[in-house]
Amino acid sequence: MPKLAAYDRNLPYSYALGIFPATECLKHAQDRCMRLLVSADSAESEGVMRLRSAAEAAGIRCEEAGRLLEKISRKENCHAAMVYRKAEGQLSPDGDHLVLHHPSDMGNLGTILRTALGFGYRNVAIIRPAADSDDPRVVRASMGAAFSLAICHYDTFEAYRTDFPEHGVYPFMLTGSTPLDEAVASRAAKCALVMGNEATGLPESFSEIGMPVRIPHSGDIDSLNLAIAAGIGMYAFARNRRGECT
Amino acid sequence: MPKLAAYDRNLPYSYALGIFPATECLKHAQDRCMRLLVSADSAESEGVMRLRSAAEAAGIRCEEAGRLLEKISRKENCHAAMVYRKAEGQLSPDGDHLVLHHPSDMGNLGTILRTALGFGYRNVAIIRPAADSDDPRVVRASMGAAFSLAICHYDTFEAYRTDFPEHGVYPFMLTGSTPLDEAVASRAAKCALVMGNEATGLPESFSEIGMPVRIPHSGDIDSLNLAIAAGIGMYAFARNRRGECT
Repeated sequence: MPKLAAYDRNLPYSYALGIFPATECLKHAQDRCMRLLVSADSAESEGVMRLRSAAEAAGIRCEEAGRLLEKISRKENCHAAMVYRKAEGQLSPDGDHLVLHHPSDMGNLGTILRTALGFGYRNVAIIRPAADSDDPRVVRASMGAAFSLAICHYDTFEAYRTDFPEHGVYPFMLTGSTPLDEAVASRAAKCALVMGNEATGLPESFSEIGMPVRIPHSGDIDSLNLAIAAGIGMYAFARNRRGECT
Repeated sequence: MPKLAAYDRNLPYSYALGIFPATECLKHAQDRCMRLLVSADSAESEGVMRLRSAAEAAGIRCEEAGRLLEKISRKENCHAAMVYRKAEGQLSPDGDHLVLHHPSDMGNLGTILRTALGFGYRNVAIIRPAADSDDPRVVRASMGAAFSLAICHYDTFEAYRTDFPEHGVYPFMLTGSTPLDEAVASRAAKCALVMGNEATGLPESFSEIGMPVRIPHSGDIDSLNLAIAAGIGMYAFARNRRGECT
């Protein structure tokens, strides 16, 4: 393995920063774990020691690398990081999909991935250009949820659609013709919930695709935050899944 | 007015940074606007010029203060800021309340305030210790929604409760006894939705108060992000308000 560098999206590896994300990486993506980095003073941390034991038991090398940790965490107080190999996920044709069209904010993206795992959306398509889902800031904001999800990238929505033509498509738009509750009441067996960019939403062309959905809210705000809209949309659709209605 | 300083929570004034938040401040809290600051190159920005005209029409002094803007925005590219007088809000006894118990993350708090306005929760109680709702980062994350809300601070939940004994209390907890849907179906005419701290949630004692609510999610995540949970809770309760069911 070459000398480790500060993260860059062109690198074939990334970092799960912090004890919790690094532990999730080891638990759910062990075959991609390359090396555990710990800070010099980490012997004092019970959490790091536990992680270290688990990594060693899995045959993953562990090394003290305080300076590198400082560099990759941008001086946040970080005592451990898992170096992991990036890998493109494979979406399952079964079950619901979450499709993120041009997401640009890393914190939002991480929060959305965590929420997706919480509501059972284990297959996430990201349409480029998009924030890098392997950026350490995204992985950290996701609390490591990224390691339990299949995340697959496409250059266009059409390319995604070609791979999964059977999913009912629900683009979330301010101008969506169908209120969320109604869309949920008539939902397809397999749904693709499509969310647009933080600032610009989905292109107007999505109003011709599937069943465009709006989340009713007052005119006092321009729009909901993307992560909030995604959370409400996933919650509402998940409540009405076949065989798991509340 | 004394020489303006970088923001500190003990100051009697704060800053609405950015054209949109500053405009919201002027529109919804004009009597608290003290001065408009603009950058030297702001004559090129149509948005700043429009804001400047509106401020001058309202009799609010406008001045070029690029260095101060840089300082208070921490070098973000910010072309305008409204200096405004802080003021404690008065909660209305009518309608739903949102109660935030020890919120600590500024970005989350701003996002929650914006969501609250979107779902018609115009009365927000904040139980201290808490992130400062007048911090420029909170105001900015709220997109200026803070200026359309009544935000009132209490030192304890009991003090809030004494002021508003008639609201049905719904503490959101991982261990809440009632799933969200059920709680919404039997909701009181006036509800207080109570959300805990990002890291620690609500103290266990809240399980004895009102109807503790849980948002069902998989065991694959420890918890939802606070802003997401608050968004889902407000959305769900708002759908079933008297006379405005969907």
